[in-house]
Amino acid sequence: MTNRKGRQSFVLPTLPVITHWACTAGKKESEGPLAQYFDVTSKDQYFGQKTWEQAEKQIQKLTLQTLLNKAGLHYDQVGMAFSGDLLNQCIGSSFTLRNTGVPHFGLYGACSTMAESLVLASMAVGGGFSDRVVAMTSSHFASSERQYRFPLGYGGQRTPTAQWTVTGSGAALVCAQGDGPKIDCCTVGNVTDLGIKDAGNMGAAMAPAAYATIRAHLEDMKREVHYYDRIITGDLGHLGKQLLIELANKDGLELEKRLEDCGVLIFDRETQDVHSGGSGCGCSAVTLCGKLLGDLHSGKLERILFCGTGALLSPTSTQQGLPIPGVCHAVSITREGS
Amino acid sequence: MTNRKGRQSFVLPTLPVITHWACTAGKKESEGPLAQYFDVTSKDQYFGQKTWEQAEKQIQKLTLQTLLNKAGLHYDQVGMAFSGDLLNQCIGSSFTLRNTGVPHFGLYGACSTMAESLVLASMAVGGGFSDRVVAMTSSHFASSERQYRFPLGYGGQRTPTAQWTVTGSGAALVCAQGDGPKIDCCTVGNVTDLGIKDAGNMGAAMAPAAYATIRAHLEDMKREVHYYDRIITGDLGHLGKQLLIELANKDGLELEKRLEDCGVLIFDRETQDVHSGGSGCGCSAVTLCGKLLGDLHSGKLERILFCGTGALLSPTSTQQGLPIPGVCHAVSITREGS
Repeated sequence: MTNRKGRQSFVLPTLPVITHWACTAGKKESEGPLAQYFDVTSKDQYFGQKTWEQAEKQIQKLTLQTLLNKAGLHYDQVGMAFSGDLLNQCIGSSFTLRNTGVPHFGLYGACSTMAESLVLASMAVGGGFSDRVVAMTSSHFASSERQYRFPLGYGGQRTPTAQWTVTGSGAALVCAQGDGPKIDCCTVGNVTDLGIKDAGNMGAAMAPAAYATIRAHLEDMKREVHYYDRIITGDLGHLGKQLLIELANKDGLELEKRLEDCGVLIFDRETQDVHSGGSGCGCSAVTLCGKLLGDLHSGKLERILFCGTGALLSPTSTQQGLPIPGVCHAVSITREGS
Repeated sequence: MTNRKGRQSFVLPTLPVITHWACTAGKKESEGPLAQYFDVTSKDQYFGQKTWEQAEKQIQKLTLQTLLNKAGLHYDQVGMAFSGDLLNQCIGSSFTLRNTGVPHFGLYGACSTMAESLVLASMAVGGGFSDRVVAMTSSHFASSERQYRFPLGYGGQRTPTAQWTVTGSGAALVCAQGDGPKIDCCTVGNVTDLGIKDAGNMGAAMAPAAYATIRAHLEDMKREVHYYDRIITGDLGHLGKQLLIELANKDGLELEKRLEDCGVLIFDRETQDVHSGGSGCGCSAVTLCGKLLGDLHSGKLERILFCGTGALLSPTSTQQGLPIPGVCHAVSITREGS
């Protein structure tokens, strides 16, 4: 039995179904263009907790509880959870799941984590290893700024290419049976590094990985760009999206008309002062688990290729003068009934 | 189709084969009881690099290259790699794989990563999503001390319950076909937290997770302790191993005669001054990908349950007064031909 397709892709012979999805977002996100799609929002960036890291745990926990409420499930009815976040040692995810009894795989894929967790959930369900799996991630603006950049109180200037880490969390329930958008194939990304060293320009660092995965996906699956209503990267931001379009054009691939980016969709560039757009694991997570799955459910969209992108740097690698490797995983999701 | 067994386990209908394995270890490890099993060793703790973090990348890279040399493979013949490490943002793993073209899933399971990567590799191969997968991890004493504890030059006193992070890396090649030890089932751990807050006593924090997973495995698979020649935790150390035995005894489960621990096996307690034993992702990785798979290959062992244990803390969670959640994933490995 082989479900492999080409070099990096695999198909799902029986299609895993995303039966439910949920998301939580912070104040700034709920003032943006996607506000109507969020299940839980809070004006308190601490979400009732004492620290930013605990706030991030809390938004992931709220998201998971909302997901399970929607599905009418308890923790002990979840077979596995795949989750990770940006905090050192992924404490947002492990503290969310501690003592819930849910079997857990911890992931680190930086901002590609929502896609990575969906790819692995597809394998787990498609291979018959579980019949109900949670794919989940989160990020928090304040915990990220402190860990990756400057203390917020320092008031550091952000460069024009910088992106704004989304405070938010998204979770999807991937099942062997049920109604909802279905995952038909996935493409696993490899770590691509073209030598970009500017940690304030992660869109540029991730664009080559996004292009490599999209090209591999189309080749492996023998599909054209227009097979998809939307190819959605998450999250290259305004600059990275433009670079991706240019990389594709050089190869004669016209992405422009079908391409959207979660980092572009989530904030209003004119009024929200986010420079090159949104970023963070939560950015593509809330965009997928709010707007995109909703649009697939309602019939606004028929087929999307969700391409989570991650910049695999650390403050230490940057301080040591190393470039920023990028990765991108792609998940093909079709409307129910198709 | 379902391969699920009980609450946390799954079986592999066609057994993935570990056709090759390789490991690299540092100076202290190669002066210990397992020295004969290491493929690559170096007396230079920088492994020719300028920083400890790059040294850790280098030992993982050496391990992967050794693995592929043994198997006679190039990077482009590897379908997927599952890997992670202890460094913030797992830069040991992503920098090892950058620009190799190997599709990569980044993991964070702390010291359980070798087991976590094997569980996921089993799913990927067992589900037909890939036919040749690398499971890999690493740790480095100096990069861990700096990141988790004190600068080495500070000369901080280590507590009697402390464990010594192993400088080493292990990798296993999991294939759909071939000769070698086989994986017949796995048990996925959940995040268990009994309130231990002492970051200098991680064996105690992980022992409850190890016990929960071993008990779940035996129940799910309807097996007895003596089904296995060895149940091998990695890495509770001397104290954690004793606590695991006590937890099991309370339930009437006699683990003692079959139990070994990678943190106990890797160093000589009398002569190597490691207090409670070894730890770090590399500890169980080099023990498995050196001694244990070798003993399964040679016939010294017929069946083992490899139980990777991880302490899911971060320096931030400890500074914020939070307890240490633990996790343990179990992989049942049988000798070739069985």
